[in-house]
Amino acid sequence: MEKIETKKRKHSETENVAGNKCLSSIFKDFKLIKVLREDARHKLITLHGTMPIPERGVGDGSKTFENHDDHNDAVVILERNAFNTSSLVDNIRLTETLETLHNDIYSTHNVFNFKDIVNADIKATVICPATDKHIIKYSEHEPFIIHETQHLYNTVTLPCIQNSNLSLQWVYNILEKKKEADRIIVDDPDPDVGFVMVPDMKWDRKHMDALYAVAIVHKHGIKSIRDLRGEHLPLLENILKLGQTAIKEKFNVTSDKLRVYFHYQPSYYHLHVHFTHVKFDAPGSDVLRAHLIQEVMDNIAMDSEYYKNRTLSFVVRENDLLCQKYKDSGYFS
Amino acid sequence: MEKIETKKRKHSETENVAGNKCLSSIFKDFKLIKVLREDARHKLITLHGTMPIPERGVGDGSKTFENHDDHNDAVVILERNAFNTSSLVDNIRLTETLETLHNDIYSTHNVFNFKDIVNADIKATVICPATDKHIIKYSEHEPFIIHETQHLYNTVTLPCIQNSNLSLQWVYNILEKKKEADRIIVDDPDPDVGFVMVPDMKWDRKHMDALYAVAIVHKHGIKSIRDLRGEHLPLLENILKLGQTAIKEKFNVTSDKLRVYFHYQPSYYHLHVHFTHVKFDAPGSDVLRAHLIQEVMDNIAMDSEYYKNRTLSFVVRENDLLCQKYKDSGYFS
Repeated sequence: MEKIETKKRKHSETENVAGNKCLSSIFKDFKLIKVLREDARHKLITLHGTMPIPERGVGDGSKTFENHDDHNDAVVILERNAFNTSSLVDNIRLTETLETLHNDIYSTHNVFNFKDIVNADIKATVICPATDKHIIKYSEHEPFIIHETQHLYNTVTLPCIQNSNLSLQWVYNILEKKKEADRIIVDDPDPDVGFVMVPDMKWDRKHMDALYAVAIVHKHGIKSIRDLRGEHLPLLENILKLGQTAIKEKFNVTSDKLRVYFHYQPSYYHLHVHFTHVKFDAPGSDVLRAHLIQEVMDNIAMDSEYYKNRTLSFVVRENDLLCQKYKDSGYFS
Repeated sequence: MEKIETKKRKHSETENVAGNKCLSSIFKDFKLIKVLREDARHKLITLHGTMPIPERGVGDGSKTFENHDDHNDAVVILERNAFNTSSLVDNIRLTETLETLHNDIYSTHNVFNFKDIVNADIKATVICPATDKHIIKYSEHEPFIIHETQHLYNTVTLPCIQNSNLSLQWVYNILEKKKEADRIIVDDPDPDVGFVMVPDMKWDRKHMDALYAVAIVHKHGIKSIRDLRGEHLPLLENILKLGQTAIKEKFNVTSDKLRVYFHYQPSYYHLHVHFTHVKFDAPGSDVLRAHLIQEVMDNIAMDSEYYKNRTLSFVVRENDLLCQKYKDSGYFS
């Protein structure tokens, strides 16, 4: 009963903040245990703390969680929102500024009291109650660069892939149209050179500048670019050509805007190709992970066993199984 | 006189916002003409508008600019600040939140009224009065991917480099220790395999996770990786080995944390190598610009003319001279 009253009071206090929507304050009893990760470039921070389990705040009338106690582990991800262009200018006029540098026509200023009364400042994602696995997942993990020779691939990486035995059923479900069939961008059923292209989960399918699609080959057994040989050239040519054409037709994005590449290491070991818009600073487009399909095609055309023999560099992180295997092998000592 | 009074009033009004620092409001008469560029991932926006020329706000007693009128062109770059860990938890407890999604232990929330009373919300960079060149520089420029064959290099790119005739004097000043001599990380004076390594301007030399150093070769005439041949292997080996050793000794950053690469196209045509910390999402580390030195070494060891013959992919932007030359050549038609 007391809780409802508090909520009502909150509501009336904050009516002018976000229209008539019901605001509450899920962080009012949040206690910090540890900052798990900071990302200054993307204005994002991940916290581990304790808090009561959030009640369902959207007025959908469904069950609410019982609030057992106030000390549940929680992972909280806070990310500042991008500027909202339509309200920006009104709000910036009302700020207070403090000059920090002035040189000729250039000056820098700290801006205080920027109040966007319509749009939220921050987006929060809360996992509560969180398990140890969540806390590990959202922590900063020390990265190490591995230079994987052919020998290291055969003795460390390959056994690790084979033993980890991760299920590819979700990939087969897409290829067999048991899942995501309504999302397919293009499907070439040819068993040798065919593939299914679907939008990546990271893409909202609305903003073309953030286009992200993935082409998954029908052929089983090609784990990564390490397995590519000269004989796979027709497969890669088909994916590139048909993929570019389909994206042009469906989304009106031309091939001179498309970054087309493999990941090494990939996140799953069934060959797939990433198509991302060049304006989108896609995660995994770093030179330590991405390999342009055009360069891969040129390399296997020149030397069929280029990727069998070549040293490939990539990043592993402390908590990865592969990192552990490299540690066990004595790679870092 | 009126101006001083206004400032005093502002000051007392905002004492509680940023201690006793003198706050003003440089944006109070800002009028928007156009949004030049939005970067949602980094929470940054660039505006073109008009405003009075900012007065010098830091109390250094030096000259102030005369305020001719209120309609000077200005370029304003606004970037949200990263979270300040020390004050974050106190501030987040006082916010209001609105649930946007709730599924089992996961929920997302819009966060309103996040007030950091000590730290600024936003950093603003102001260029005022701004010229057309400033406005063009800070505008969004349409990117295009070029696949540069050997033929296109010889007929479009190379003539463009030769005709643009950009001075490399600032590079020679570093190599001859006329400039930045106190910043040198390592110098190997050998005329064939030697180089000078200096910190990049983007690195503050304090945060090791953002380490960015550049090794510039002493030898003149190697414009980019296009000019690298088998004979340059000892040069590249020396840069990699000596560079890694110097960074380990001076900054205690080990080689398994270093991304070492060339840019293609480079920003200046005198061979240089980038050393960046793997945790730093360095601009230009994208697969469409970066080429790992280890891979370059393997490629020229295998085929001395690999980079002479190879098709290389990179991004040009609408306003680049090189983009114009490719347009003129009929590449896009």
